[in-house]
Amino acid sequence: MTNFAIAIHGGAGTITAASLTSQQEKVYRAALQEAVEAGHQVLADGGSSLEAVEVAVVLLEDSPLFNAGRGSVFTKEGKHEMDAAIMCGKTLEAGAVAGVKNIRNPVKLSRAVMDHSDHVMLSGYGAEEFARNHGIAFENEAYFFDAFRYRQWSEVRDSNMFMLDHSEKKDEKFGTVGAVALDKSGNLAASTSTGGMTNKNYNRIGDTPIIGAGTYANNATCAVSCTGHGEFYMRAVVAYDVSCLMEYKGYSLKQACEEVVQRKLVNMGGEGGLIAVSSNGDVSLPFNTEGMYRAFKRNKEKTFVGIYKE
Amino acid sequence: MTNFAIAIHGGAGTITAASLTSQQEKVYRAALQEAVEAGHQVLADGGSSLEAVEVAVVLLEDSPLFNAGRGSVFTKEGKHEMDAAIMCGKTLEAGAVAGVKNIRNPVKLSRAVMDHSDHVMLSGYGAEEFARNHGIAFENEAYFFDAFRYRQWSEVRDSNMFMLDHSEKKDEKFGTVGAVALDKSGNLAASTSTGGMTNKNYNRIGDTPIIGAGTYANNATCAVSCTGHGEFYMRAVVAYDVSCLMEYKGYSLKQACEEVVQRKLVNMGGEGGLIAVSSNGDVSLPFNTEGMYRAFKRNKEKTFVGIYKE
Repeated sequence: MTNFAIAIHGGAGTITAASLTSQQEKVYRAALQEAVEAGHQVLADGGSSLEAVEVAVVLLEDSPLFNAGRGSVFTKEGKHEMDAAIMCGKTLEAGAVAGVKNIRNPVKLSRAVMDHSDHVMLSGYGAEEFARNHGIAFENEAYFFDAFRYRQWSEVRDSNMFMLDHSEKKDEKFGTVGAVALDKSGNLAASTSTGGMTNKNYNRIGDTPIIGAGTYANNATCAVSCTGHGEFYMRAVVAYDVSCLMEYKGYSLKQACEEVVQRKLVNMGGEGGLIAVSSNGDVSLPFNTEGMYRAFKRNKEKTFVGIYKE
Repeated sequence: MTNFAIAIHGGAGTITAASLTSQQEKVYRAALQEAVEAGHQVLADGGSSLEAVEVAVVLLEDSPLFNAGRGSVFTKEGKHEMDAAIMCGKTLEAGAVAGVKNIRNPVKLSRAVMDHSDHVMLSGYGAEEFARNHGIAFENEAYFFDAFRYRQWSEVRDSNMFMLDHSEKKDEKFGTVGAVALDKSGNLAASTSTGGMTNKNYNRIGDTPIIGAGTYANNATCAVSCTGHGEFYMRAVVAYDVSCLMEYKGYSLKQACEEVVQRKLVNMGGEGGLIAVSSNGDVSLPFNTEGMYRAFKRNKEKTFVGIYKE
């Protein structure tokens, strides 16, 4: 039997049982379950891993719970600037967008860049112009407005502080969503999407849209989507490092993920996690923070949904 | 004796003896020699590899001969949008800017991002705001005007064609400059800077400012700066791949460079080259195109300057 699998994440950070009410926890679990099962259904029906990760990420972007798409945090200017990427493990083709505003689903725009441009990465108003030329849906500011995010931003807007997500000031949560999948044809895909850091300025670009850092897929090894303190993920080229450890050192997916997340990133001070699926259907969801919103479903097995450390 | 070395490039492509007059060749050789020797002098005087690569790249940016800084090509809008990155092999710290306008020396801005921000990568007007806040020099449009570049752009401005550098239409030259260095303390550094593709649009970002793709340095292995068809370099995570082949497979610098440039990139259709220096002072300057503007100088050895295949 051919394995097929999908894993998703909705961000990592200081997420503890004490920080969520049981009602909040229920809402998060339901959203993760819905997204992973929608992506899994695509795979079960014989669809491609690219379709599956896109379907799952769209649902996470459409949820106000996660820092991506609709739930994106506020920048220093009170706007929403989003990044996203997608990569095909079969062809090594990729598409990415950085710093786009008013795009309903940045993941769909990254897919359009991959499918319909000669480029891998577009940014800012140029990426928005490309979106208009390719029928990508836009939304007005009201769509992205969320009272919780606004309050969170209001607390730091006049400071030079930035927050990595909807956390208490001393906490750190890394708001990103992502999905990785292996389809029945043995093809891998990865996608990541984010609204970045609360109160970010200077058009900062994090690891999410960087192929090799926040997002990577290669049928020879694995598909990876990261969530964490992006600057460390960029400097450590995290997603491609997991792939290289498998390809060049013969590590298993689990070994490679442990080496990168629990040793290399920890030594650098880089907090976060990642989700990964290998070409043989192994799934790994490591994180070095207190929690990570995550889920996976493989073949006809039961859906796993997790938030805290097990 | 401790080895120290610097290598630079000024772009790769269909550069043949037939395509340059002997006067043009002389001018290019002199510019390359001046830049590599200025960087080398920093190292000889006990300066850091970071200083050395910055000094060399500034000279290449200031020359109208190369597609970076002053010599940047025109975008579809008739503007100049530049990208640059710098990385320190000792600390793995990095700074990068994408899509910046009117910055005299993008490499200096990338250095300021590394030294004075919490971020790795800034873009567009946000990066320019950061530049103003950190005393980075701006220039008006006239500074970047070059009759040759303008003519080149005029030929394609009303088309959807883009050109990868100041080449005839069917040729391909990849306009980028870069430097890699090893200093007497054993520290590596890499930097890359570019004006992108003639007539580019949609705020395309190439490999130059992507840590791991166009630029990477790690004292454990090597420093790498790339020049080529950026999309392929991003998908192949070229600079970090060279490093991983050394670290994880025990390849020599030369073996790693050959594997990536002459096999992997060639198989994908990715044209270009790179310059690299290892922690023990080996230098490699591979390219799979007809030529690459390049130079290196190690210890007190004679300066090497090359344009065509040897």
